[in-house]
Amino acid sequence: MAVGLGAFPNIPVIEGVRFATAEAGIKKPNRKDVVLFELAEGATVAGVFTQNAFCAAPVRVCREHLTDSTPRYLVINTGNANAGTGKRGLEDAKATCVAVAELMGCEPSQVLPFSTGVIGEHLPVQKITTVLPAAKAALSAEGWENVGRGIMTTDTLPKGAYRQLELDGKTITIGGISKGAGMIRPNMATMLGFIFTDATVEQSVLQALLSQTVNQSFNRITIDSDTSTNDSCVAVATAAKGASTINSLESDDGKLFAAAFLEVMQELAHAIVRDGEGATKFVTVEVTGAAQQSDATKTAFEIAHSPLVKTALFASDPNWGRILAVVGRAGVEGLDVDNVSLHINGCQIVENGGRSPSYTEEAGQEAMNPQEIHIKVDLGAGQESDTVWTTDFSHEYVTINAEYRT
Amino acid sequence: MAVGLGAFPNIPVIEGVRFATAEAGIKKPNRKDVVLFELAEGATVAGVFTQNAFCAAPVRVCREHLTDSTPRYLVINTGNANAGTGKRGLEDAKATCVAVAELMGCEPSQVLPFSTGVIGEHLPVQKITTVLPAAKAALSAEGWENVGRGIMTTDTLPKGAYRQLELDGKTITIGGISKGAGMIRPNMATMLGFIFTDATVEQSVLQALLSQTVNQSFNRITIDSDTSTNDSCVAVATAAKGASTINSLESDDGKLFAAAFLEVMQELAHAIVRDGEGATKFVTVEVTGAAQQSDATKTAFEIAHSPLVKTALFASDPNWGRILAVVGRAGVEGLDVDNVSLHINGCQIVENGGRSPSYTEEAGQEAMNPQEIHIKVDLGAGQESDTVWTTDFSHEYVTINAEYRT
Repeated sequence: MAVGLGAFPNIPVIEGVRFATAEAGIKKPNRKDVVLFELAEGATVAGVFTQNAFCAAPVRVCREHLTDSTPRYLVINTGNANAGTGKRGLEDAKATCVAVAELMGCEPSQVLPFSTGVIGEHLPVQKITTVLPAAKAALSAEGWENVGRGIMTTDTLPKGAYRQLELDGKTITIGGISKGAGMIRPNMATMLGFIFTDATVEQSVLQALLSQTVNQSFNRITIDSDTSTNDSCVAVATAAKGASTINSLESDDGKLFAAAFLEVMQELAHAIVRDGEGATKFVTVEVTGAAQQSDATKTAFEIAHSPLVKTALFASDPNWGRILAVVGRAGVEGLDVDNVSLHINGCQIVENGGRSPSYTEEAGQEAMNPQEIHIKVDLGAGQESDTVWTTDFSHEYVTINAEYRT
Repeated sequence: MAVGLGAFPNIPVIEGVRFATAEAGIKKPNRKDVVLFELAEGATVAGVFTQNAFCAAPVRVCREHLTDSTPRYLVINTGNANAGTGKRGLEDAKATCVAVAELMGCEPSQVLPFSTGVIGEHLPVQKITTVLPAAKAALSAEGWENVGRGIMTTDTLPKGAYRQLELDGKTITIGGISKGAGMIRPNMATMLGFIFTDATVEQSVLQALLSQTVNQSFNRITIDSDTSTNDSCVAVATAAKGASTINSLESDDGKLFAAAFLEVMQELAHAIVRDGEGATKFVTVEVTGAAQQSDATKTAFEIAHSPLVKTALFASDPNWGRILAVVGRAGVEGLDVDNVSLHINGCQIVENGGRSPSYTEEAGQEAMNPQEIHIKVDLGAGQESDTVWTTDFSHEYVTINAEYRT
């Protein structure tokens, strides 16, 4: 039921990155459920991770390894989240790193582990380590769609995005993959997102760029308000193109690179929403005219989380009273409701806090019919704004989550 | 689909209160959609109302009239919320009060208006005032179930509760009615709740008691996290029994009265949850061992609002990983996940932050099967606690809210 999600893009080779998938039978047989990435020596790596206090064991290990060394390998499994698994969970995640390190000839701290799937069951380490030699033998710089598929769980389609730009006379590529369809309300990171570039970027600059753009992409999407235990987003700059080093986001090259990087991040984040569990609509919630940005952010998220708004979206019902009710309870201090206006897909429904004189039910119905819905609320209190992307709430969401064990 | 909601209780006559219903055809014909209450002279009245900034016109008028005078009449309509209706909405609510005042011979400020139903349409005042004389003629102290039915919208059953106690040698009754099934996450009030007693209670004491008990009843229930624009809860003490005045909640009589009052408030609040839109479970979420009460409150509400937890409850799936994930993202500062434990219906599932060694999937399934579910989370951080009541999330909820225009 993915909304407006096209074919997987033809991501070109990103020099300095090789990858492979393997079938370990972690949850189901005959499914690619392990992905191995190899990064060129000299690559810089940045990461952001879930703020959930019950963060998964691999998230803890990633944080530790990113502090201790420069990663050379990423190992990802689906079918098991290795979360809520206590001390043994940490041992299992580290054992996976040790196995990769022994096979590839690096330090265990140079391996970052990622897991996604059911919470509360122990990781079948043996199944993973058994297929690592096959993955090593299959390492290649081509076939991004395969690794996109290799990290899917309830996703119906693989998700990828890329941009190219000229820097220092060289064609630089920024590309990545993401996954996630439920338990999506990232907080400082996303379910799983991996962005790669063959540019040369100082680690501190890469980390700053990742942290900044994640707040305009993955941290502004929500499907069901539930922040996962395993959210992780990693950026890798391989330096393999030999272009000059980006050491500031304020330089000309830095600005160009940052703009393209943000586009890739947003496209990957939107892809997760478009493939949201049971989604029939792709919804942009824009809140403008706020006295401070936090008012815009929280109002947009409250609208995006409201079950009543989401079920009305599913029904293509221009039920604007539900949106006003959410704006009113969103906790914006000093809100003057008489200044609030509301547009849906350009149709003005509310002005001065009440139904617009020009509004007709027919115009509202027409505005609500498309798959792509833009809800724009102006609080009439200032100049700040924010935007959040979400989906509707359908029978299919209930079916999926009453039947699938996350 | 009401969960464990029995027949309407046989509420006895509460001296000093008369009431009647009428059919005004506001939204549908042949439906009792107007209720009129008459309160004895000398009755004290207390109220709490929605904190939604987009509060409905009748809520604004109630607040004003409660400040200005002592109410003698309550007039309630369903089918139209008179919310999002601007200045004309205020005029319409006041016109209704004027009509009641002229008919009954009191000041307009002695009338409190209440509306519930669709948001954003103007109140059909004429339809309401036309049936007021019939309501006046029908005023009676008996037939509480009728008025319970007269305030219903998407409710499937009328909701009432009462307690009796001996005070000052007299049998005092505390009884009330409530309504609401969706857009239920009261904030300082509930959709509509009316509690009456023939005791004599100082107004300031009655207001204090209402404000205090609402935080242990209506303000601790949630169906879909959406706070209504029309939430109102009113308590009336008619003094008609001639028992001595309760002028403190610390006196022996005050304590007895407060305990019975709380029981009525909780029973009415739970009735709303039991009749929640699409509900198949009645769920108690208790969070204990918190360092401060606000940690317990927010964790309990986050669990109660999680679509993933609610769909797992619908499926009777002991999906405890989803509950841990919510606890971890609830924003409890300094949470040590290794101290967290979880019981469902007495079955220990999590201890020390991980799966309990004694836990079996069979035991979890057995614990999840009943209609009444008690989720108990201990944060292991202190002595504070709180409890919230909610429902599951079913296909029926989506159907109701994709089809019904609130």
